[in-house]
Amino acid sequence: MLEAVERKIEQYIAELDERDAIELYRRLPAGKRLRAKLILIIAGNTLAAVKTAAIVEMIHAASLLHDDVIDDAYVRRGRPSINALYGNKTSIMFGDVLYSKAFHELNDIDREVSKVISAAVVKLSLGERKDVLLSKSFNDDVEAYREMIYQKTASLMEAAAESAALLCGKRREAYRIYGRNLGMAFQMIDDILDITQSSDVLGKPAMHDFEEGKSTLPYIYLHDAMDARERERLLSLHGRRIAAEDAAWIRERMDDYGVLKRAYEEAAGLVHEAVALMKAEGESRLEEIASKMIERSY
Amino acid sequence: MLEAVERKIEQYIAELDERDAIELYRRLPAGKRLRAKLILIIAGNTLAAVKTAAIVEMIHAASLLHDDVIDDAYVRRGRPSINALYGNKTSIMFGDVLYSKAFHELNDIDREVSKVISAAVVKLSLGERKDVLLSKSFNDDVEAYREMIYQKTASLMEAAAESAALLCGKRREAYRIYGRNLGMAFQMIDDILDITQSSDVLGKPAMHDFEEGKSTLPYIYLHDAMDARERERLLSLHGRRIAAEDAAWIRERMDDYGVLKRAYEEAAGLVHEAVALMKAEGESRLEEIASKMIERSY
Repeated sequence: MLEAVERKIEQYIAELDERDAIELYRRLPAGKRLRAKLILIIAGNTLAAVKTAAIVEMIHAASLLHDDVIDDAYVRRGRPSINALYGNKTSIMFGDVLYSKAFHELNDIDREVSKVISAAVVKLSLGERKDVLLSKSFNDDVEAYREMIYQKTASLMEAAAESAALLCGKRREAYRIYGRNLGMAFQMIDDILDITQSSDVLGKPAMHDFEEGKSTLPYIYLHDAMDARERERLLSLHGRRIAAEDAAWIRERMDDYGVLKRAYEEAAGLVHEAVALMKAEGESRLEEIASKMIERSY
Repeated sequence: MLEAVERKIEQYIAELDERDAIELYRRLPAGKRLRAKLILIIAGNTLAAVKTAAIVEMIHAASLLHDDVIDDAYVRRGRPSINALYGNKTSIMFGDVLYSKAFHELNDIDREVSKVISAAVVKLSLGERKDVLLSKSFNDDVEAYREMIYQKTASLMEAAAESAALLCGKRREAYRIYGRNLGMAFQMIDDILDITQSSDVLGKPAMHDFEEGKSTLPYIYLHDAMDARERERLLSLHGRRIAAEDAAWIRERMDDYGVLKRAYEEAAGLVHEAVALMKAEGESRLEEIASKMIERSY
């Protein structure tokens, strides 16, 4: 089913008439195409849905290209990222090419859909900036964290689901919330896995987020639960390379205070709401996608 | 007249509800607002024209933010650039914010205008990449140079003029060519001034383009006119810091072969065509803007 989306993206890239762009595009890891999948499941395999899915995936790819530059990330899904292979400038420029081509193609689909998707890209860009600003010191504000992951990760999934509902005349509000909850839960689980999984599985060091200055939900809850002396030690470790001994201490404290469980339950709560909404709409495949997300072990 | 455009841009930025964005925006040098001026002169001071002008100027600002990162440029119009002040990452992210907000606001204006402008941003992004690729070795292909400056500099001016014509029902074709020719001539003159003006006036070292690997029209014509021995010396100087003695030699050869004059006349030819088109449309202010462009001394 996603094959049609891949072909549409390739067509859009070929229209740029730039040999170089096609080569770069082929170097991008395709990923799970979760946003495209949602769109096709909701709206069916129509031409408008395929176009919308291709546009959303190009926007997602562009955002990752810029993301990797901003986060100094050289590995993406276990493979060297475009900035690692060709340098930051190529990533910036190719990101701009994908963004602009995607926005140009939005003109070819329903105007309401175009509004929803372009509004999401504004949020996504603001979220990227918020992520960087929040990482400058230890962020202990859970609302700021939620707002940031909503903008950075959930907004495009929300827009994908809402757009798809618009394309086929389904109730946009239910799908919008579904997409948002799924996106928020996805990021929360991802942030938990950064702590609980081994570096082999992650393809990057464990607790990398914290080393990079990012205080995700478990760290915020941990900070919240700690006494003054523990907090001091936690904050002293923030934003720098963590020794194995310190990592073990953090993990131990997290287990003691049950913060991973608490973070996981927050994600699960969002997923349950999403599942209930889709049950009401009779969307069993969407229920399944959401349920699977919290089956990922932590 | 441009005051309304400034206010509209500020409104768009304020809608982002991000204190940080407003501060960054205020740090951007406003520039000449040439694209906005063209739009208002062509389409009049209507709300649609003001919105379109604001959107185009935001796109232009975003492209300059990314440009300065890609070119390692730390000075913009004699002032430190955003990447010099706040680092490359801030420039990338703020550029993305401006781009996406501008694209989102395109949904609020005529669809044909939206198509024209977003197509220009695709060209602009491709042109930026082409500029970098062409700078890797000495480019002696004049057609590649023309295509690159068309994409990188002229496409947005072309789109501005064409959009404005669309908004008020004037003949889009004449205005499109006017905008394109103006943009091409503007870049050609700029490239000439990089050679002929002192570093005091430029706010950067003279012949900076050549040092950066960019072979603009005068260099291409010079290379073309030279014998094998001279060419060898020219190519040996390409893409590196130029000593005063070598710069003097290049300048001397350029005078001997009359290549600055030849490049200038090419720009002037484009301007004359633009002026003639606007004469036929009875657009005396547009004639004047174009004519003034080639009055800049070289």
